[in-house]
This record gives sequence, C-alpha cells and structure tokens, in this order.
Amino acid sequence: MASGNWYDSAIEGVLLDITGVLYNSTDEGGVPIPGSIEAVKRLKASGVRVRFCTNETQCTRQQLVDKLQRLGFELSVPEVFAPAPAACQLLKARGLTPHLLVYPGVLPEFEAFDLGAKPTCVVVGDAADIFNYETMNNTFRKLLEMDPPVLISMGVGKYYRHGGELMLDVGPFTKALEYAVRCEAIVVGKPDRNFFLGALQDMGVQPQNAIMVGDDIVNDVGGAQKCGLKGLQVRTGKFRPSDEHHPEVRPDGFVENLAHAVDLLLQHRKK
Amino acid sequence: MASGNWYDSAIEGVLLDITGVLYNSTDEGGVPIPGSIEAVKRLKASGVRVRFCTNETQCTRQQLVDKLQRLGFELSVPEVFAPAPAACQLLKARGLTPHLLVYPGVLPEFEAFDLGAKPTCVVVGDAADIFNYETMNNTFRKLLEMDPPVLISMGVGKYYRHGGELMLDVGPFTKALEYAVRCEAIVVGKPDRNFFLGALQDMGVQPQNAIMVGDDIVNDVGGAQKCGLKGLQVRTGKFRPSDEHHPEVRPDGFVENLAHAVDLLLQHRKK
Repeated sequence: MASGNWYDSAIEGVLLDITGVLYNSTDEGGVPIPGSIEAVKRLKASGVRVRFCTNETQCTRQQLVDKLQRLGFELSVPEVFAPAPAACQLLKARGLTPHLLVYPGVLPEFEAFDLGAKPTCVVVGDAADIFNYETMNNTFRKLLEMDPPVLISMGVGKYYRHGGELMLDVGPFTKALEYAVRCEAIVVGKPDRNFFLGALQDMGVQPQNAIMVGDDIVNDVGGAQKCGLKGLQVRTGKFRPSDEHHPEVRPDGFVENLAHAVDLLLQHRKK
Repeated sequence: MASGNWYDSAIEGVLLDITGVLYNSTDEGGVPIPGSIEAVKRLKASGVRVRFCTNETQCTRQQLVDKLQRLGFELSVPEVFAPAPAACQLLKARGLTPHLLVYPGVLPEFEAFDLGAKPTCVVVGDAADIFNYETMNNTFRKLLEMDPPVLISMGVGKYYRHGGELMLDVGPFTKALEYAVRCEAIVVGKPDRNFFLGALQDMGVQPQNAIMVGDDIVNDVGGAQKCGLKGLQVRTGKFRPSDEHHPEVRPDGFVENLAHAVDLLLQHRKK
C-alpha cells in the first residue's frame, strides 16, 4: 500500500538513499533489493534527475560505486553525495586537523590531512567494530585536550540493517562523546541541511520539485522535509512498523520499496 | 585554599564518595589519597556520622570493602551505599528480569535473578572494556525487543580517573543506548535523589545537617545539593580546574582533599 499524495506534485529530481533502498548490506558485500536496479534505470531514462545521498562512511565513494556497479546499478562517483567528502570540505574551510574515529575503509578520503599532527578536532563515522572502550577513551581524551572540544559527526543515524540484523550507527557513539565532554557535534551528511541543498544544487532542482527516498525516517525523510523537499519512506532496509506512527516525523508517503515509488512517480508523469 | 562557608553549619553527618576521595583506583588495586585514611578515622571518632556513597559498579560492595580495608580504611559493608543493590531493589519491586551490561566483578550482586530468562529490562553499569560494538549491539537489540524499552543505569557519570588517566564511565554509554532506542534511562545511584536520602535515613540525619564530599561535581556535589545537603568538591580524583567555573553546579566549598575537609569541619565543631 502506498499512502499520501506525494506523487501528485511535479517532481523533477529524486535523491536516493543507498543502503536499505538500493541494496541491503551484508558481510559478503550486499544484495540488491528486488526491483531497485531496474527502478534506477527507469528513473534515469525518464528524464528525472537523480542523485544518491548516503550516510555510508565505511568506505570511499569510489569503493561504494564499484560495489554497486558490480551488483548491477548504474551510477557514478559524481552522482554520489557522502559525509566524508563533506567533512573534508569543512576541515579545509576551517583549517582543522582531525583525529579520526572511523572505519579503516574510509581513510583514503582523508589523505589530504596530516593524521600524525596534534588534532584540533575529532571526526567520527560509522566505525562499527572499531568502536570499543579503548578507541572511545582515546577519542574522549583527544576532545578533552581541545578548548573547546570540536566534534564532527558524519551523520547521526541511530542504527542500520546489515546482514539481517540491526547494528548501531554512528549516532549513539557521537551522543556518548557529546555527553562525556559536554559539547554539541557538528553534523555533516544527512540530516544536515547543507548536505541536501548541495545535492539539489548539483542537479539544478529546487527543493519543492524534489523528493528524498529513504529508509531512515529521521535522517532521510525528516531531514529532507526540513529543507522543503518531500520525504518518502520505503518499507525496506531498517524500516520498522513503528515508523508509521513516529512521534516526530510524518513522511509524505510510504511505499513498499523503491520500485513501487518509481512506478507511482512515472505513472503520474505520463498523465 | 578552601572556599565557601560550608563548615559554619552544624554538620551531623557526612557522605563520602570513595574513588577519587578516599583512594585512586589503579590496575593494581589502588592507592590511598594522602591523609584520607586518617581523615576517616578522625571523622568517625569525632561523633560525626559517616556513610560511603559510591557509584562503583565494577565489583560487589564486599569486594570494595575488602580492598579498602586492605589499604587501611575503617569501613564496613553496611556503611556503603552503591548502585547495584539499589538496582536490585528496583528490579524486585517492579518484577523485572534484567539483561546486564556490566563488569563481571559485579555479577554476584545480581545472583537472585534468572539471567537466562527473556529480559524485561536492561541494567547497565561501568562495564569498562566490556563496552564494545558487539555488547552494545546486543544490548541495543534487547531493548528494541521490549515495548517500551526499559533501561536502568547505575549512575550516569561521564568519566573517572584510573591509573592516572581519565576513563569513560557508564554515562556516555547509557546516553548512546537512550539515543539509539529513544528512551530515558532510570538512574540508580548518584545523582538519584532516593540514593542520597536512603543513606541519610540510614544514619538518621536531616539533609540540612549533612554534607556530601566528592570529586564529581555533577553527580556528587550537584546531586547532593538538589537533595538539600551541602556539596563539597575535593581537588583530587577526577577534579579538573574547569570545575571551578562549572556552568551548572556551584559547590558550597572547594577543598584540597578529604583531610583538608575534615580539618576544617572538626576545627569548627570544637569551637
């Protein structure tokens, strides 16, 4: 069942979340969500502009694109917006040197920085099993040495689905560090306003003519809505039935999956 | 330098924090803070009533008392108030079965509960290196299976000093879980009001005639002040100079250490 009347509007651009919308991640790499490879193709062929907005921070954009291409998706690095490049932009603009609490796969994105120098900020990502008492203590102590502590969080997602199980995302660990040193993190990636606006600007579409399709009701759907886009919730990925009665976010629509969303969108455009 | 006029009042009872006030914990057990063994003796000999209020959750009260006695302190188990027994009282009163995210040393405190049964709440303590991605994920999933999630936190301290370094306490990890499952933890131990009042009741002293001596400005000093006790900050343990300009808590006084506090208190009582 779809809900809402989101497809009644003149949509010119679509922002797609990746994990949980295009594919489900697993230890072996990932499995496409049925219909989504074809859905991306049809969307692009229709003339609707498409960008991919992910909070993936376990690998570089190039690695992510390579993986998705191997799975059969048509996309390229310049179409992908991810937090690590956004964090690097911020670091450069402010002249900051980072201490990184990240998954090793994303390190190449930060090669422009001297990681041996005394850090003036901390950048935290979805570090997964790199999150442990030792790395958290080490990062906490780096923050305490700064006055004031500068914490940059690549997304603030609560959890995601991986290999059939829900896994904690970066958000909870960012909240732990915020509490420990009494600071508020600067968020890059979704739901940061600049992140959505950057992707829209890149495809030359105004917020009111764009829609974000995601499985994260707060960071995808709610974040996009705050920027003036419509926000569409898929019932794949980390979706849970309780999202349909979320206390803070009411999506413009719910769809079974990306293929379903594209069906409705393209049917409407043909009329 | 001492500050404030906290020792001008008629103090009948003193609550003492343990770690950072009596002794500094180390991997080898601990080292008494100079003058504190004698200070406890003098305080007890003076007729002032004394209880020990700790947020220690890495061991049982018996183990803690044994360790402190070996170091030379005069204290006994009934004089010690700690979060684990308080958590057990709460579990029994509400008929809850816990999933424990705690340090192994404290497990004997929970022997009355069936830890193999399906949990109806989570109890988290200072689990130290038991905090890792796997145990955090496991605990997070247990909470998600509850409707609503019930999270009990044994204290919410930000950090403590151990072996010369600051270490993250239970609080940041509790905040991580709260954020992940969108709940608010029930706190047992300091700064919970009932915890202070229980210790006061046990020694038969009214809040206005009691003082808490601690190194944690929020949980010891601020927590006690909210219950109507005076709160005295020692410059030992996790004390940091920035505590003297804390944005939320203004202690009734600062002292160099426990011995200094007892000097001032007993000098005043003799007059």
